[in-house]
Amino acid sequence: MLTTEELVASLKSVLPAEQVSINETIREQHGKDESYHTPSMPDVVVFPASTEEVIKIMKLASQYKVPVVPFGRGTSLEGHVIPYDHGITIDFSLMNKVLEVRENDFLVRVQPGVTRTQLNKELKKYGLFFSVDPGADATLGGMAATNASGTTAVRYGVMRDQVRDLEVVLADGTVIHTGNLAEKSSSGLHLNGLFVGSEGTLGCFTELTLRVYGIPEYVMAARASFPSVQDAVSAVVGILQAGIPVARVELVDEPSMKQVNLFNDTNYKEQPTLFMEFHGNEAGLKQDVEFMKEIVSDYHCEGIEYETDQAALNQLWEARHNLAYAFIHGYPGKKMMTTDVCVPISDLGAAIDNARAALNKLDLPGGIVGHVGDGNFHALIMIDMNNPEEIRKSEEFNEVIVIDALERGGTCTGEHGVGVGKQKYQEREHGQALQVMERIKLALDPENLLNPNKLIKVKRELF
Amino acid sequence: MLTTEELVASLKSVLPAEQVSINETIREQHGKDESYHTPSMPDVVVFPASTEEVIKIMKLASQYKVPVVPFGRGTSLEGHVIPYDHGITIDFSLMNKVLEVRENDFLVRVQPGVTRTQLNKELKKYGLFFSVDPGADATLGGMAATNASGTTAVRYGVMRDQVRDLEVVLADGTVIHTGNLAEKSSSGLHLNGLFVGSEGTLGCFTELTLRVYGIPEYVMAARASFPSVQDAVSAVVGILQAGIPVARVELVDEPSMKQVNLFNDTNYKEQPTLFMEFHGNEAGLKQDVEFMKEIVSDYHCEGIEYETDQAALNQLWEARHNLAYAFIHGYPGKKMMTTDVCVPISDLGAAIDNARAALNKLDLPGGIVGHVGDGNFHALIMIDMNNPEEIRKSEEFNEVIVIDALERGGTCTGEHGVGVGKQKYQEREHGQALQVMERIKLALDPENLLNPNKLIKVKRELF
Repeated sequence: MLTTEELVASLKSVLPAEQVSINETIREQHGKDESYHTPSMPDVVVFPASTEEVIKIMKLASQYKVPVVPFGRGTSLEGHVIPYDHGITIDFSLMNKVLEVRENDFLVRVQPGVTRTQLNKELKKYGLFFSVDPGADATLGGMAATNASGTTAVRYGVMRDQVRDLEVVLADGTVIHTGNLAEKSSSGLHLNGLFVGSEGTLGCFTELTLRVYGIPEYVMAARASFPSVQDAVSAVVGILQAGIPVARVELVDEPSMKQVNLFNDTNYKEQPTLFMEFHGNEAGLKQDVEFMKEIVSDYHCEGIEYETDQAALNQLWEARHNLAYAFIHGYPGKKMMTTDVCVPISDLGAAIDNARAALNKLDLPGGIVGHVGDGNFHALIMIDMNNPEEIRKSEEFNEVIVIDALERGGTCTGEHGVGVGKQKYQEREHGQALQVMERIKLALDPENLLNPNKLIKVKRELF
Repeated sequence: MLTTEELVASLKSVLPAEQVSINETIREQHGKDESYHTPSMPDVVVFPASTEEVIKIMKLASQYKVPVVPFGRGTSLEGHVIPYDHGITIDFSLMNKVLEVRENDFLVRVQPGVTRTQLNKELKKYGLFFSVDPGADATLGGMAATNASGTTAVRYGVMRDQVRDLEVVLADGTVIHTGNLAEKSSSGLHLNGLFVGSEGTLGCFTELTLRVYGIPEYVMAARASFPSVQDAVSAVVGILQAGIPVARVELVDEPSMKQVNLFNDTNYKEQPTLFMEFHGNEAGLKQDVEFMKEIVSDYHCEGIEYETDQAALNQLWEARHNLAYAFIHGYPGKKMMTTDVCVPISDLGAAIDNARAALNKLDLPGGIVGHVGDGNFHALIMIDMNNPEEIRKSEEFNEVIVIDALERGGTCTGEHGVGVGKQKYQEREHGQALQVMERIKLALDPENLLNPNKLIKVKRELF
């Protein structure tokens, strides 16, 4: 084992000195994410400016068997970027260029440190947009690493659906491309899909080629209030079954609506509410919205309001996106824990009922929100990390939600990823398939250097 | 090594005798696909009726190190199912049940031997359909194995996009599930994506859970003729850029239109033609079609005809689907070779130009057709397999097309897969990523028993 001094000296021999930091504040910033998981600091943080520099870092790490954690903006929610084994954290903030917009191919090539709002600002010039919208202004490298999704997945798909190619630096410094520029391919094994969602455990992403979309001709949003969460969920199932191509459909329950109003100074009805958005041509969209109105009224919708101008649309979605911050703001000193299960849509109502009953039983304050068009919902609960009883209750709550989702054929995480928080459910969810994942990890990173013990905890005896 | 007699005796000890065949005709039927690739017979063909029987077969194969080839209906086009290493062919035709339709979840669970027309017949009762349409009435297991697509991928995606879960029997007889029933998941490595398109080299699929869609409210088809292929392709690019959500858009060139008319007794204009289909609500679709009309007229469209009734729609798409058979019928005694590159859409016109020039230069008779909304096109050429010069020329032609596509950032196969026919281009296309694929194959099938030397030819020294 190298000492930290020796490691830093080695890194400085291959990188400009100012791109290698052991500053305490910087290490602290890279020792946590936005979750409640316990922080842990890296020994050193490096800021590569090119793929070549990432290769040099990985070759050194590989030579000296030093763990490496890739880091975007630290907005992960399950401890993905926390370096519990210390070593090197690679911060991609200097690799933040939009390299190429292939307007006619609906493709864009970016460095991993580009954030989604930065990309959308650039794409707007071309009448294009990038669809994946997890709320946080994460980097695209990080979003690919966790297979992020968010409000628009119901229409445009998740991060994995947008990735056409990744440039990846593997554990030993080899550079590969996982895909190509064609819209579809049956050539070779599907490495795009495998690397997206691998949470930094198989390689460092140094370039991404992503699918983008034309800004729709016409956009309309609606806010519909219901007497109960069940009615709202049933309305969503009805909308999907009618084949209405809704672009976003978000459920915000009553306690969460209260928090929205408090934080945003809005005056929305404090009832279970669906925030919806429709994209299309004007004629088609008007027919869709008429049909949607009939469906929601069948489920006792007590008020529906429409927005078509951009400012009102922005306010509506900002209110939704700020919800997590609204809870954090409302419970000073507490940390947020978020569940993230995804279930078959026909089970969604029962799964949400079960979550609300568990919150009540455990007497935990919290809201339920969700990307209900996908069957994905979150219970947001605020925990005092100095109160062991609250921590215990929140863990019990998480477990109740996850086991229920797995019994319904769902998954423990629809979009946040595994990190360290969902590891304990991996064997239960994947069964023998977990060993296949372990064998793949072992085949590609035999020394377990890349974000070790995240996503998959490979048994030591296999190394 | 077991003798064939010993192998058959072992198989009969775990399967009913009538499910184990060494009949010459049956072995011959399992020694070829629909392509020009040289046949080669298995030693024995087995017909399992359940996952349990597949497990028993794989355990035997694994114990005695006998190669295994999974077989659907033999409609592959690159020699995928030809057992060049002999051994056992597993024919899935007895496993042909639609097990469950989860109407409200838009999901269906099937056995691998179910064909796509069989599935669609069942789904129609529920107002649902399965979107992937490769032309041939392949089995769903086979379609998943090659990541098939076809005419509707431009709107609904390819086979990989529809697979929510696979039950897979691995080389050693272990059974895994690669996914779950939720619409999205960030849990574990993405095994769904990895196994789809693995061409039988990683495991045998014994059950598939697939995404299905509501039959659209309104469907309209159009046939538009153009003075040149270039105009037709430019019109497609224009339609896509306008954001018109076309459900199918197929190019059929002039020689192919002649073959269509000859074979189908139709009287279509013998000009480069786009076959298009639009799905949506009536109002939106009418606005889309009006817009489409403006765009095609900008590209010198010389005639456009619409169909909305089901019989006319069926005739139109049958004509398109019968094209390969129309060529085979028109050149008795010859075998068909089909190129299958996919390029970025902005390169499609130039790539097709290049293909036509190569056909002319080599004096090869053939047609060009394609799923042009994806940038995927096929040149169909007819070869006399007893004429070495024709074989040489067709191989030269294939290579010209593939190298051109790779130089444009495309892929050697958009939908047919690698099999044995596209193996020689894998290193050129994937570079160092090919070694990653080899390591994965080796990790999951260390004895190289599953469809050996297809897709990836793992270097012997690695075993």
